Amino acid sequence: MTSLFSERLIAQIKQKQSIICVGLDPRIRGKSSIPEFLLSQVNDNYNDAIWEFNRRIIDATIPFTPIYKPQIAFYEKYNALDALKKTIAYIREKGALALLDAKRNDIGSTSAAYAHNVFEFLEADAVTVNSYFGIDGVQPFLNYVPKGKGVIILLKTSNPSSGEFQDLFALDLPEISADITEFQVKNVTVVRNFIHMARLMKKWSQSPTIMHVEQPIGKNGFTSLGGVVGATYPTQLKAIRAEAPHNFILIPGYGAQGGKAEDIIQGVNDQGLGAIVSASRSINFAYQSSTYKNQFSEEDFDKAAGQAAKDMRDDIRTALESAGKWKL
Amino acid sequence: MTSLFSERLIAQIKQKQSIICVGLDPRIRGKSSIPEFLLSQVNDNYNDAIWEFNRRIIDATIPFTPIYKPQIAFYEKYNALDALKKTIAYIREKGALALLDAKRNDIGSTSAAYAHNVFEFLEADAVTVNSYFGIDGVQPFLNYVPKGKGVIILLKTSNPSSGEFQDLFALDLPEISADITEFQVKNVTVVRNFIHMARLMKKWSQSPTIMHVEQPIGKNGFTSLGGVVGATYPTQLKAIRAEAPHNFILIPGYGAQGGKAEDIIQGVNDQGLGAIVSASRSINFAYQSSTYKNQFSEEDFDKAAGQAAKDMRDDIRTALESAGKWKL
Repeated sequence: MTSLFSERLIAQIKQKQSIICVGLDPRIRGKSSIPEFLLSQVNDNYNDAIWEFNRRIIDATIPFTPIYKPQIAFYEKYNALDALKKTIAYIREKGALALLDAKRNDIGSTSAAYAHNVFEFLEADAVTVNSYFGIDGVQPFLNYVPKGKGVIILLKTSNPSSGEFQDLFALDLPEISADITEFQVKNVTVVRNFIHMARLMKKWSQSPTIMHVEQPIGKNGFTSLGGVVGATYPTQLKAIRAEAPHNFILIPGYGAQGGKAEDIIQGVNDQGLGAIVSASRSINFAYQSSTYKNQFSEEDFDKAAGQAAKDMRDDIRTALESAGKWKL
Repeated sequence: MTSLFSERLIAQIKQKQSIICVGLDPRIRGKSSIPEFLLSQVNDNYNDAIWEFNRRIIDATIPFTPIYKPQIAFYEKYNALDALKKTIAYIREKGALALLDAKRNDIGSTSAAYAHNVFEFLEADAVTVNSYFGIDGVQPFLNYVPKGKGVIILLKTSNPSSGEFQDLFALDLPEISADITEFQVKNVTVVRNFIHMARLMKKWSQSPTIMHVEQPIGKNGFTSLGGVVGATYPTQLKAIRAEAPHNFILIPGYGAQGGKAEDIIQGVNDQGLGAIVSASRSINFAYQSSTYKNQFSEEDFDKAAGQAAKDMRDDIRTALESAGKWKL
């Protein structure tokens, strides 16, 4: 039988003593972008340049990286889905996991088409999904859990306006008819939307019917359905960790978006498990950053990325060790 | 100056005396699928078969169809993004509008990459977006409003489990600190999540700063930001129409999902404007349906689609006329 995604991820985490996730977001020309010399042979086809960039980043970061997260938007933008497919295959060949950041969502029959593309054509190990549709739109992705695949839904995203909708306080009052759109309540408990979404995640992830496996919680304590919570929101991260102790949390927002290692502490359990922390720009384009640009040339962009990944791994590990939460 | 998306859409609606939107969701082999004879030359490349299918469907339905809605999931599934690009170009060449159903969503810098792909590479006229991220994730798409592009966000989706999250009753209490995740309230007004999303849509769509146009509401009374409300939820449709009189509503769920013409009535204003009603399977694969299969052969799949589109146009028009809401 295929191992659960959560167990495969934990094996990589333990082996590499690292909970980082390296985003692979190729950007062409602009403030943060792949080196010009890789583009010298390029006409309108960016596949080769992006593939070469990713391959070298992966080779340099693999000792510290249990899981990679290519963001499909950039491959779509540059018409480079071939490079994406090759990148995912290469990550897996090297023994790490590939999480496709795609935030797909739709009604069931359409989500099934997306799931087919993500898991059968691109062959990712896991995917991010927006679960605004409820279980119907997530189920087609969860149907791949028995094959070792994972799903990460959005809870509290890292962007500044995430509170506009996600922070609304919501009540779950199933006895109210669907026809009622507005009414008065007294003395009821309300929780924010992102907590409701976390509760749905918890409920779905522990159901053998939904997860299609007899024991949705693996021997290390985690299911194959997780959630996204931005490093930029540490208080909310703590609340979600408490709500859902058996769900992995993908924490974006470290680095370029301003999240710090201390912000991660609330995302893991006492053993140090339960979160993966992702960074994209700060690793991919480390060769351009003030921290690394004096140390590495443009030609050594991959070595800069490797050093940045190692430093990020160590930075987070140190913060968790100081908090007494590193027993991997 | 380029006309607003809403004005371009209304011009097509008036010209064709139709508020239907034909989905273009190619499915290969299965219960509802494109004719086998189109696949005879196919090896692993479905681009030609899908393009031929779409081209013939468009030719047959164009007299009744102001706007088409290709669902990108199916083109991704069959690795047929070339067929998608050609299809969008063909729709526009024929004078109709192309709404890409993609439900994209992410933080701002990533949404900008998606928006580039949708509007600059694929050259769609409009796109569906999931606005769980708040304005940050929608703004990069709205930046194209001055170029005549439109954006449709998800409010109340057509699927059975849409209520699981969208129907929760939510409070907007901005004075409450972000640190508070749970508390008690007395005598406050609460509205469902999908109504909150509709209120955000209304607010965003009337802001010249967000929409980047001085007059976001066009001369016919509508903005270029709309919302999705399933035909399967007519009561909710009525509530959203009342909340947001200047926003177009995309109503999926007619046909295969069970929505009826009578369910649409609440979606339009007294003039008959404000909604487009989409159907995919019931038009695309009309040649296989009990209604049309005795009348049309597999070779005439396009004629079946043309008849189904005309019947749908007339069915909705009759229902709106009976309700005194057809003054186009």
